[in-house]
Amino acid sequence: MTEQARIEGVYLSTTLDLEKLFSPAFSAHAQTIRLRRPEEIEDPSAISFALCWNPAPQAFAPYPNLKLASSIAAGVDSIINCPSLPPEAYVTRVRDESQGDLMAGFAAWHVIWHHRNMRHHIVHEAKHEWSRQWTRAFLPPGRCTVGVLGYGIMGRAIARAVTAMGFPVVAAVRNEPDTPPPPGVRFEAGEGAIERVAAAARILINVLPLTPATRGILNAEFFQKMPHGASLIQLGRGEHMIEADFAAALDSGRIASASLDVFAVEPLPPEHPFWADERIFITPHQASDSSSELMAEQVMRAASAIAAGKAPETAVDKAKGY
Amino acid sequence: MTEQARIEGVYLSTTLDLEKLFSPAFSAHAQTIRLRRPEEIEDPSAISFALCWNPAPQAFAPYPNLKLASSIAAGVDSIINCPSLPPEAYVTRVRDESQGDLMAGFAAWHVIWHHRNMRHHIVHEAKHEWSRQWTRAFLPPGRCTVGVLGYGIMGRAIARAVTAMGFPVVAAVRNEPDTPPPPGVRFEAGEGAIERVAAAARILINVLPLTPATRGILNAEFFQKMPHGASLIQLGRGEHMIEADFAAALDSGRIASASLDVFAVEPLPPEHPFWADERIFITPHQASDSSSELMAEQVMRAASAIAAGKAPETAVDKAKGY
Repeated sequence: MTEQARIEGVYLSTTLDLEKLFSPAFSAHAQTIRLRRPEEIEDPSAISFALCWNPAPQAFAPYPNLKLASSIAAGVDSIINCPSLPPEAYVTRVRDESQGDLMAGFAAWHVIWHHRNMRHHIVHEAKHEWSRQWTRAFLPPGRCTVGVLGYGIMGRAIARAVTAMGFPVVAAVRNEPDTPPPPGVRFEAGEGAIERVAAAARILINVLPLTPATRGILNAEFFQKMPHGASLIQLGRGEHMIEADFAAALDSGRIASASLDVFAVEPLPPEHPFWADERIFITPHQASDSSSELMAEQVMRAASAIAAGKAPETAVDKAKGY
Repeated sequence: MTEQARIEGVYLSTTLDLEKLFSPAFSAHAQTIRLRRPEEIEDPSAISFALCWNPAPQAFAPYPNLKLASSIAAGVDSIINCPSLPPEAYVTRVRDESQGDLMAGFAAWHVIWHHRNMRHHIVHEAKHEWSRQWTRAFLPPGRCTVGVLGYGIMGRAIARAVTAMGFPVVAAVRNEPDTPPPPGVRFEAGEGAIERVAAAARILINVLPLTPATRGILNAEFFQKMPHGASLIQLGRGEHMIEADFAAALDSGRIASASLDVFAVEPLPPEHPFWADERIFITPHQASDSSSELMAEQVMRAASAIAAGKAPETAVDKAKGY
């Protein structure tokens, strides 16, 4: 590849203006790659990669030589499930330790929100009321097990932050790892692991990837396994949870309180009943987003790898879905 | 000591009904120690120890044989500074790792509160508004240094939790310890250490003990050292901070936001202007309290040690003040 031959890419999203959001970050790599909107592409056969977020079903169809579809974030489900994705194309996600840190801080914040009933302070501060929670209604951290579903970059970062606050962590892993768990963390592996984590956790955090195996996993049967009065922190994907089953678990007292950051329909419509339920704390899919600069650099590297006939380091296993 | 000879103690507090709060916890030790209200004591010379929280200036005067004054919590300043405390009496505090965990979780929560501007979500959730903070107005955790003033049980626990979320920590220590700091933590020691921590920290957490040397330490001169737009998390004692200087630092923009858990006057009066300032998050001296059972056990052990002519393990250095 000469210095003049830039690698050509296209923005593909139905929900975000990717050019507006990310072209500043890609300007640092303008000599290596060029990204444009679909309507700006004169020769679709020159396009070798796409930057994606919720691409339309036929979004990839015009590009016969597309070899790479890069997500702007950690999630790749909308790309892998896109029917027009060429079967041979690599799919990459952002791999970002600081994204793990962001997720860890956000998850830790919600653990304390539920453990210490922090809404109490929000409510009383608004009324200018000094209202201590004298009684130890909450368990000592050391006796309040936190469950983590999903033990990749995100889950491991969360486990690190939560154990550092003194909470025991039990994490569901697909296969028992070769290395022992870090101090304070216990693994559940194999058949029924997720259900055993649910049964052990006073506070349960979901950061599973969305795959055919995990879609709808937070359902009535699952909630039945949780201890009565547990808390749920849902930071994965909206499609993990059956909302009606969750609402029923909340009304039965099975789930005492929850933090929801992701929803089946986003933005969550203003008339949705979850907004008005003060047992639920709603955030707008805000747990973690990667720095634009890091994402742009990783996409540039992936596109350069493809152009050199190599596999990108940030490629996911499309069969596994992450 | 025979099994019959119980060690006699007295509750001394101007602000809390210690008997109501703690007699259940002491019931497990009824064969060893007995605690009563001052008005129930027939023979003050039989009293060898006191359970204290904000004792009145002359609270200790009636008890000529008092050898031990035990705090119900980690703070001992109101006991050490009490003019009637017999100079030879031991003062004990609660030493509780789970209290460290509670403090760590609470401090970590406030770090994220400021780092991620979580009030934004409180405000918009109340209006049923999906309002993402798209722009990375906040620094990546790895570039957002958190300062910790006070590096005892509390400060170390906080540093552990905050570094686990990816924030670098700089901690002020009286003397450079023999052991290197844990990963992610940097020490500032000796003359000017506290000011250097203030200058380095985007988010500053105070958990210093209250001593003559630290009273009023959070003052105008100190705030001048902080970076413009920093956040303050004040979890020490109200007397550490000059409120008027803090208000001025807030109005100048030097301090952008703050969490205050302790105040010169507690409860903070409802008419106090801090309540209505949404840059400030107020909690009612709630950061950490120890379990009653652990406290009762430690006080029982201290009283037993005294009765056996030994020094209690939980005694503080009264000259240092902690």
